[in-house]
Amino acid sequence: MSKKLSIISFSGNFDKLTAVFTLATGAAAVGYEVNLFFTFWGLNAIKRKQGRRFLGKSVLTKMFGFLMGGLKVAPVSRLNFFGISPKVFRSLMKKNNVATLEELVDAAKELGVNFYACEMAMHILGLTINDFVPEVKDVLGVATFLKLADGGQTLFI
Amino acid sequence: MSKKLSIISFSGNFDKLTAVFTLATGAAAVGYEVNLFFTFWGLNAIKRKQGRRFLGKSVLTKMFGFLMGGLKVAPVSRLNFFGISPKVFRSLMKKNNVATLEELVDAAKELGVNFYACEMAMHILGLTINDFVPEVKDVLGVATFLKLADGGQTLFI
Amino acid sequence: MSKKLSIISFSGNFDKLTAVFTLATGAAAVGYEVNLFFTFWGLNAIKRKQGRRFLGKSVLTKMFGFLMGGLKVAPVSRLNFFGISPKVFRSLMKKNNVATLEELVDAAKELGVNFYACEMAMHILGLTINDFVPEVKDVLGVATFLKLADGGQTLFI
Repeated sequence: MSKKLSIISFSGNFDKLTAVFTLATGAAAVGYEVNLFFTFWGLNAIKRKQGRRFLGKSVLTKMFGFLMGGLKVAPVSRLNFFGISPKVFRSLMKKNNVATLEELVDAAKELGVNFYACEMAMHILGLTINDFVPEVKDVLGVATFLKLADGGQTLFI
Repeated sequence: MSKKLSIISFSGNFDKLTAVFTLATGAAAVGYEVNLFFTFWGLNAIKRKQGRRFLGKSVLTKMFGFLMGGLKVAPVSRLNFFGISPKVFRSLMKKNNVATLEELVDAAKELGVNFYACEMAMHILGLTINDFVPEVKDVLGVATFLKLADGGQTLFI
Repeated sequence: MSKKLSIISFSGNFDKLTAVFTLATGAAAVGYEVNLFFTFWGLNAIKRKQGRRFLGKSVLTKMFGFLMGGLKVAPVSRLNFFGISPKVFRSLMKKNNVATLEELVDAAKELGVNFYACEMAMHILGLTINDFVPEVKDVLGVATFLKLADGGQTLFI
């Protein structure tokens, strides 16, 4: 049996990020090697300072940094009415004693889940390794990540 | 050759659910073992009674149940202008003699596709096994599903 | 090591199509066999003539052809405010010397990436092989594509 799970975390939506970290922690908890490759909007999940901030260098990249926000402002993909829905979701999670997204991210770190950032997306968005949490192990290109993922299950979320 | 296809069905959108069941029935028809793991919005596809109903226990979970709707009200992910598009889509499917989503779901049941519901998402949304169609074989956690999927192709849709 | 990557390209969004072609070219450049299966909105990426045009036969399919547009009008999945965002994205890509989507598509063709079109989606949307670029190798059903993908990594984007 292959015990390796690799996820290309592309979306910045709250519910999809919750799915990424639920899968990651669930697999790591039973001994899987888990590799997360954050790219495009998914890079939000590993930003050092959360919240709507101005990262990057130029006006355009700043605008993107602002629009992308961070983990605390990640929208739910379908029901994001005026920003209400992530709050409702969090509230449901709290109420039903389910780990919240931030708790899942912390659990992933503790369980030794490997975090990687996508070189090309960082280049487009004007981000450097210093913009991310220290748990980010490396900045990788696509080919290197596919090699890491080889022999296991790979998902694009 | 591995003849196993496993899909994490996350989206509640009409077109994505159509993709899930097209892949599932197409694979099952040529002898694949097919495992569908319904989570988050995807749980709509296996709800016992379709339509905008109030499932679950609390006000918050009722609100979610209402917003999520069911298979008949699943929106198309991109072109959902005032609810017109799923109708147009259905109409196109009918006209061109393509199986509709409901027909695909029925075919999946007949072809022995395995339906599983995600434990954690049910917990968040306040759903129980009784809220689903009887074809749902079991309620699973992530790790158990990954084990079922091992050795085949796994998709996140 | 398996050097095969297969992608079901379902989305018509600019950022997701960029992800498809970045993965495809990145993998092909290091010797992978790459199979792209275009379906639903993803069919936009391989349309012969780009732009908002009227393909297909009936009024309904024409309407869909119009709504779907082509590669040049593909929206960014999250930040598509009044059509501004794909332009901003392109501008960022140009500025930071990253290959644009059109360049990535051209690179994929040159690197021998295999393009396939989904039979069922073409049927629903009233498209024929003549609506696509000549690099489209074949029109396939789901089961045939899964067979091609066997033994490698498969993604749904």
